[in-house]
Amino acid sequence: MTQQRRDDGSLRHLLTLQDLSRDELEAILERAQHYVRRRGELAPRSDVLAGLTVANLFTEPSTRTRVSFELAAKRLGADVVNLEVQLSSRVKGESMLDTVFTLESLHVDVFVIRDAEAGVPALVARHVGPAVSVLSAGEAHVSHPTQGLLDALTILQHKGRCEPLAVAIVGDIRHSRVARSTCQALQTLGVGELRLVAPPALMPAADEVAGCVRHDSLEAGIRDADVVMMLRIQRERFADADVPAGDAYFARYGLTAGRLALAHPKAIVMHPQPMNRGVEIDSAVADGPQSVIRDQVANGVAVRMAVLETLAAVPAQRRS
Amino acid sequence: MTQQRRDDGSLRHLLTLQDLSRDELEAILERAQHYVRRRGELAPRSDVLAGLTVANLFTEPSTRTRVSFELAAKRLGADVVNLEVQLSSRVKGESMLDTVFTLESLHVDVFVIRDAEAGVPALVARHVGPAVSVLSAGEAHVSHPTQGLLDALTILQHKGRCEPLAVAIVGDIRHSRVARSTCQALQTLGVGELRLVAPPALMPAADEVAGCVRHDSLEAGIRDADVVMMLRIQRERFADADVPAGDAYFARYGLTAGRLALAHPKAIVMHPQPMNRGVEIDSAVADGPQSVIRDQVANGVAVRMAVLETLAAVPAQRRS
Amino acid sequence: MTQQRRDDGSLRHLLTLQDLSRDELEAILERAQHYVRRRGELAPRSDVLAGLTVANLFTEPSTRTRVSFELAAKRLGADVVNLEVQLSSRVKGESMLDTVFTLESLHVDVFVIRDAEAGVPALVARHVGPAVSVLSAGEAHVSHPTQGLLDALTILQHKGRCEPLAVAIVGDIRHSRVARSTCQALQTLGVGELRLVAPPALMPAADEVAGCVRHDSLEAGIRDADVVMMLRIQRERFADADVPAGDAYFARYGLTAGRLALAHPKAIVMHPQPMNRGVEIDSAVADGPQSVIRDQVANGVAVRMAVLETLAAVPAQRRS
Repeated sequence: MTQQRRDDGSLRHLLTLQDLSRDELEAILERAQHYVRRRGELAPRSDVLAGLTVANLFTEPSTRTRVSFELAAKRLGADVVNLEVQLSSRVKGESMLDTVFTLESLHVDVFVIRDAEAGVPALVARHVGPAVSVLSAGEAHVSHPTQGLLDALTILQHKGRCEPLAVAIVGDIRHSRVARSTCQALQTLGVGELRLVAPPALMPAADEVAGCVRHDSLEAGIRDADVVMMLRIQRERFADADVPAGDAYFARYGLTAGRLALAHPKAIVMHPQPMNRGVEIDSAVADGPQSVIRDQVANGVAVRMAVLETLAAVPAQRRS
Repeated sequence: MTQQRRDDGSLRHLLTLQDLSRDELEAILERAQHYVRRRGELAPRSDVLAGLTVANLFTEPSTRTRVSFELAAKRLGADVVNLEVQLSSRVKGESMLDTVFTLESLHVDVFVIRDAEAGVPALVARHVGPAVSVLSAGEAHVSHPTQGLLDALTILQHKGRCEPLAVAIVGDIRHSRVARSTCQALQTLGVGELRLVAPPALMPAADEVAGCVRHDSLEAGIRDADVVMMLRIQRERFADADVPAGDAYFARYGLTAGRLALAHPKAIVMHPQPMNRGVEIDSAVADGPQSVIRDQVANGVAVRMAVLETLAAVPAQRRS
Repeated sequence: MTQQRRDDGSLRHLLTLQDLSRDELEAILERAQHYVRRRGELAPRSDVLAGLTVANLFTEPSTRTRVSFELAAKRLGADVVNLEVQLSSRVKGESMLDTVFTLESLHVDVFVIRDAEAGVPALVARHVGPAVSVLSAGEAHVSHPTQGLLDALTILQHKGRCEPLAVAIVGDIRHSRVARSTCQALQTLGVGELRLVAPPALMPAADEVAGCVRHDSLEAGIRDADVVMMLRIQRERFADADVPAGDAYFARYGLTAGRLALAHPKAIVMHPQPMNRGVEIDSAVADGPQSVIRDQVANGVAVRMAVLETLAAVPAQRRS
């Protein structure tokens, strides 16, 4: 039993996708698919979290991810409170856990936590009472489990199965929690081939993100790929002399229509957003017919509903 | 058909009052009157937006207008998310529309947008899917349609009809979206006489805001007026050498009890708020018996409920 | 009749505990106890505020207190809007009351107000209409009535009755609204002995906080006490040469396990939070078996529900 499970083995927290079985992943994705609606349809609704309180603790600004979690929780019937707090251990003079204990004493049932410091969601998970769940909304460069799930769901919707696919993830993989969680999800789901494409300075250490083929060249990396997933490059990386900067980055690692033609003709293009148009991706590709970027967003709220339901749905006996 | 209508001619967005017919205006105002409650009564409630999500995207700080829209949407049963985002095209490095597309993919049904740059609400309206509505909550100096509607409703409540009335709008008309929208509403409703009162430097261009009598002198401008509507003057205008500054502004354009005596004895005094007391209006007038400023605020939430219902009420067949 | 009562003597506002009778205090505490839930149980729910709107006007940052009031109101069925506004009379150029009048016109039924300036909640209470209630969430150094109530509730839960108890309040009493409100509550409830423990520079004036025994020495002050309530010391106090600073403060006024042994063996330890661990309290004590600090937080939301219900519950005849 790991840190994110109850004694009976069921999922209580979601901090990482690392130890989820293929059956568990598929069950969450199936439930998420249940919550997917076409554009123009009414949003899905349920009351499985009615009576519960979800606290969004976001210590990094991320309006879009916060709204996605907020709407997921509200549409399941939960009360939601948004807090901007500093949880990191770097905060001096006051225990970060005091804030968590305060919220727990206010009967917060689920903590959705985004923090730039590694280990914070797990630290909170270790200290809250047994009826409380913790859901990571992005942890340093380590993990972003709901992003991994929504990427997997998006691929399955368009490609049906993972086994025959070659998936290329391109960009700043070294600092990307998205890449780590998406790789875990796809490997568990049996992906055929996983390629990491990045300049050496943005490639993770050799013992990290195992089981992937590594490419320095974008052209080689995306050749015949079924899925091309571009990552956001933070501009501060360009201060590193070993990283091609700005236009040079786009020249070598930006996804253009010309380069996309190297991939499989039916390849889909993904991006976790927000995009730097003209830096890692050309607008013509981002908005083009092979882009499924907007599907990713829509799948995000469906996946978050499925995860919240999986972790925290109130059994009938607790409601009485 | 204009940019704010569906193919069948019905209103889908509300960006401007410019092309609304008198029947349309009166239908919205009648519906708004249905939502007016006296002070001390419980707020009106409905569930015509139940299941919908309204996003308040306010890029200028305006707590009061934001709360007015937030309460209007909640009291109709909608879920509401508040976002402070930069939508303007001046934002570099990321398409402003990506934020809108993200929210649309999260099944946001109505965007309430306030932006200091002209054209932003219409740009959003052009790009969202056919089931999504955009409601302007104030666009640069161009338009503030719900303010125009609430001003018209307030006047009708106190005066019954627009035809016999002389309405004087006083202050920084050049930069005022309120003045533009209120003039459009009152002209469509057949107002007898519309007067713009301002120093020349704060008067709009000659071809703008047509059909009004222009006055440089406050005394001449409000003489025998039935309605005196004062506008907020931004202090930065006083940096313009052609605008009387501070006390000099009050001396020439501030509404005092003495000056108000020049208007019709039953004239009402209006102000869109927030007021600069002692700059454009004396407190004795703002809080005096002829002031209907608090009615304007109450009518604001009623008008916003009526507009949200008009644009976005969920037909029974969509709910099933 | 005081400023916080209706003509029939019932409580309409809660600005201070000063004039509440013992029966009134006990009625609120009994109702609060009704809303107390154990950790792991579902939060309490009611609909006695359904249809009402509660506005949290917090002009000082206090996320935890704001969330406590927000959840209390939501769990009673109210709509809640959060505003960060400047209410203080120090704000120039615009009447602070205009914001209140605007919100009142939007049918806000209850104002929850925290302000660093004395007199602001009472000023608002004097100006709102008769159907509106004002609840102080902390007023300068003057008053924090719901904190006084939750402290009293916590003591009663653990000790049963106030009469036999010796209660020591330790720290910056001069600047503490918590100390003032808690003393008022405990004195009304007939506490046996109330001790104020502080360096002279942090002791209130001689005519303030009457009926207490004053101690300069922590050891003397907590000897055989049944309750030891530590207050937060603001670091800016250390700029005062008469206040022992930092480590020196902890050496003389910090609560350690060794010092706590001077109190009654069954003494409970309280703190209004947030704590400066290692400044006014040692972590071993804050997290130790005698600490009831987390109970205080849980009681906070229960007390706030009870107060909101007492002030503002909607009579059946208003709902029709």
